[in-house]
Amino acid sequence: MLTNDELARWDRESFFHPSTHLGQFARGEAPQRIITGGEGCHITDRDGNRLLDGFAGLYCVNVGYGRPEIAQAIADQAHQLAYYHAYAGHGSEAAITLAQMVMDRAPQGMARVYFGLSGSDANETNIKLVWYYNNILGRPKKKKIISRWRGYHGSGLMTGSLTGLQLFHAKFDLPLEQVIHTEAPYYFRRPDAAMSESDFVAHCVAQLEALIAEHGADTIAAFIGEPVLGTGGIVPPPAGYWPAIQEVLDRHDILLIADEVVTGFGRLGTMFGSDHYGMRPDLITCAKGLTSAYAPLSASIVGTRVWDVLTRGTDENGVMGHGWTYSAHPIGAAAGVANLKLIDSLGLVENAGTVGAYLNDRMRSAVGDHAHVGEVRGEGMLCAVELVADRDTRRFFDASEGKGAKVVAAMLKRGVIARAMPQGDILGFAPPLCLTREEADRIVDVTAEALAEVLG
Amino acid sequence: MLTNDELARWDRESFFHPSTHLGQFARGEAPQRIITGGEGCHITDRDGNRLLDGFAGLYCVNVGYGRPEIAQAIADQAHQLAYYHAYAGHGSEAAITLAQMVMDRAPQGMARVYFGLSGSDANETNIKLVWYYNNILGRPKKKKIISRWRGYHGSGLMTGSLTGLQLFHAKFDLPLEQVIHTEAPYYFRRPDAAMSESDFVAHCVAQLEALIAEHGADTIAAFIGEPVLGTGGIVPPPAGYWPAIQEVLDRHDILLIADEVVTGFGRLGTMFGSDHYGMRPDLITCAKGLTSAYAPLSASIVGTRVWDVLTRGTDENGVMGHGWTYSAHPIGAAAGVANLKLIDSLGLVENAGTVGAYLNDRMRSAVGDHAHVGEVRGEGMLCAVELVADRDTRRFFDASEGKGAKVVAAMLKRGVIARAMPQGDILGFAPPLCLTREEADRIVDVTAEALAEVLG
Repeated sequence: MLTNDELARWDRESFFHPSTHLGQFARGEAPQRIITGGEGCHITDRDGNRLLDGFAGLYCVNVGYGRPEIAQAIADQAHQLAYYHAYAGHGSEAAITLAQMVMDRAPQGMARVYFGLSGSDANETNIKLVWYYNNILGRPKKKKIISRWRGYHGSGLMTGSLTGLQLFHAKFDLPLEQVIHTEAPYYFRRPDAAMSESDFVAHCVAQLEALIAEHGADTIAAFIGEPVLGTGGIVPPPAGYWPAIQEVLDRHDILLIADEVVTGFGRLGTMFGSDHYGMRPDLITCAKGLTSAYAPLSASIVGTRVWDVLTRGTDENGVMGHGWTYSAHPIGAAAGVANLKLIDSLGLVENAGTVGAYLNDRMRSAVGDHAHVGEVRGEGMLCAVELVADRDTRRFFDASEGKGAKVVAAMLKRGVIARAMPQGDILGFAPPLCLTREEADRIVDVTAEALAEVLG
Repeated sequence: MLTNDELARWDRESFFHPSTHLGQFARGEAPQRIITGGEGCHITDRDGNRLLDGFAGLYCVNVGYGRPEIAQAIADQAHQLAYYHAYAGHGSEAAITLAQMVMDRAPQGMARVYFGLSGSDANETNIKLVWYYNNILGRPKKKKIISRWRGYHGSGLMTGSLTGLQLFHAKFDLPLEQVIHTEAPYYFRRPDAAMSESDFVAHCVAQLEALIAEHGADTIAAFIGEPVLGTGGIVPPPAGYWPAIQEVLDRHDILLIADEVVTGFGRLGTMFGSDHYGMRPDLITCAKGLTSAYAPLSASIVGTRVWDVLTRGTDENGVMGHGWTYSAHPIGAAAGVANLKLIDSLGLVENAGTVGAYLNDRMRSAVGDHAHVGEVRGEGMLCAVELVADRDTRRFFDASEGKGAKVVAAMLKRGVIARAMPQGDILGFAPPLCLTREEADRIVDVTAEALAEVLG
């Protein structure tokens, strides 16, 4: 029979974990943690530890753990029809219903929903659609994609190229040449401390204009960006950034892909980040919040401008050769339908706005004046605390000191999960959207205690 | 409330189907079919039609539809813990158990299992691992991947490049330059009809050697192939093909990636196609049969030669920046565990061999002599009937006549699903592994009737 010891051994000997130090894990030098249950904002491991999850898995369990409504929808679908494909006009009631529910919630100007499995594959789909679009329009050279440094758009070959973080490029020969990067809208790390927010927006626009001029607008198909930078540091844009960027893109006939994998379905206190910041995307990438991670599902929401060209494309060329076997998988679709209903019935978009603001305010009051906190920032149910060696000069710690990871480890000892973001010493918080004020207080209190323990 | 008419309208207006003629579908000129249930080898649509599925979805529902054991495993997992991530040494009991079960069934020389969601993303992972491997070994130039014309390895940007089919390249600017193609091991379409099978194998080897010489072995990292060509036409290799290819790869220090998405977990009557043909892969790609499609899950099985270098890589460089949020998703893992148990307890690997041979024999007897059948071929529970305009000269029909699609449509009218393969007039059969002899008879009888109706 299955004993705990066997499980632990199998884990070390057979399981290749993502985003892990493989050597240390295999040798037993890095911890293993086997999760066995969860409820609301808490998870439980097989050793009986109960942890407050301040990062909602990987900012994805938006409705919280253990929701019987979604589990039951998955169970019912599994018993009724676990799978049939969606190729060539086939579908399931769940997938069609979810398509309609997504359209009902999407920003204006959207036409259709394509379902995949992960944020990475949805971005892959979006790039393919952008290339196809320009081929049908007779612009074969207009193919490059502009992304931002510190953007996160996946960890495939092309999607990892869109990602603008060193961890995802080094040793993988990325970025591929089809992707070029421009300035991150990261005001705290602006090149000159004297810049105002509007100076910095002008700087970002100038950098973008220079990149477009260097390559030629006729070679650039699309610009991709998260409404709020996520894995790159949880960084809301400076005021006026998106309207200024949008104007440049419109002028050069460059499509906008809004990567709403983190922000879609409520995390900023609005249904989509595009609404929140007045973006007018041509394509929207969704995953995480679409099902709250109860089953894998992603969505590419395609705007009318692109859709009209795609249909012309199939009229001219026949069936479009793009699809995954598991596109629009019924289990994922059933989870999505139940999840979107729950977001509405529990008022979670509103809660993300109000409790998110409370979390950010409390965090700012509690640790904003700490000698090694450079900035507390956030929007909706996203919050980050950026550590510095010196506040006045914005001098950062040496990465090898691992200060962020040490604070996060000190929090974990106290039963609260935060995430040490991969580039910089940045504590990241992205709790389930059902977070209560009491849970927000606990996250803040434990952050303050851990900061004091590690940094004095 | 949800009426059928509303569902049909939502489907046309909101749902972007994969591999579909978008214009025709949106305008209501192409059929829609909403699947509501299934049992064994049959599916049911909402209009009450019951169809014998001779293609197991997309050759993926290996255990057949409506298995309560898998549905219940999914339901139990959904209620216990629908999701937690597997990053940084985290895991679930289901994922760890499945990793061990895959290793217990894998060919010799394998070390670890990485779980993704789709065959496409598993191939994406495999290419990333191959590049990382050669970077750690200090061979930065050794990066190109050789695939075969008519191979199918996915429809992403890089994986669609690996795929060697026109439908997946045209208008998408594929293949990308990192991928080069060599001869398909497709004896029926050999360049010279006079060639024996062994002549043709020698020809494939010579083509491969010439490609390697042209690019230089020091630029070529890996060779990827399906044990039996799948979407490219369901083509078992000529006798001796894999040992001959393996020898070339070994001599040039080129890794072998076996894409076992279709063949893995029993379809050929052996657990893996690599065992069946004596391949010695360094990496194995799995999906479909891993869960019988009850939930999305893929696997990259990593051989010892590669794994040892990967662990050295993380010792030298720290955490590997590769992972999907939904890697090793507990719902998929629970489905996988129940599915692999069911394959064993029902003896489906054996059944695939015996009933698959019966299906192929019966098909050959029934239609092999038809004036427009050029070849009946297959292996295990895979079978193809290739149509020709003229048997003696191997002259093919013009693609615009759509002969294969017409035969498949004539079969569908009679309640049996086959697949018109995308390149050539080829009827494809890949039923669930639980197919009975009676069901095989029905597939064959209906194929013969439909052939007679369309081609006389």
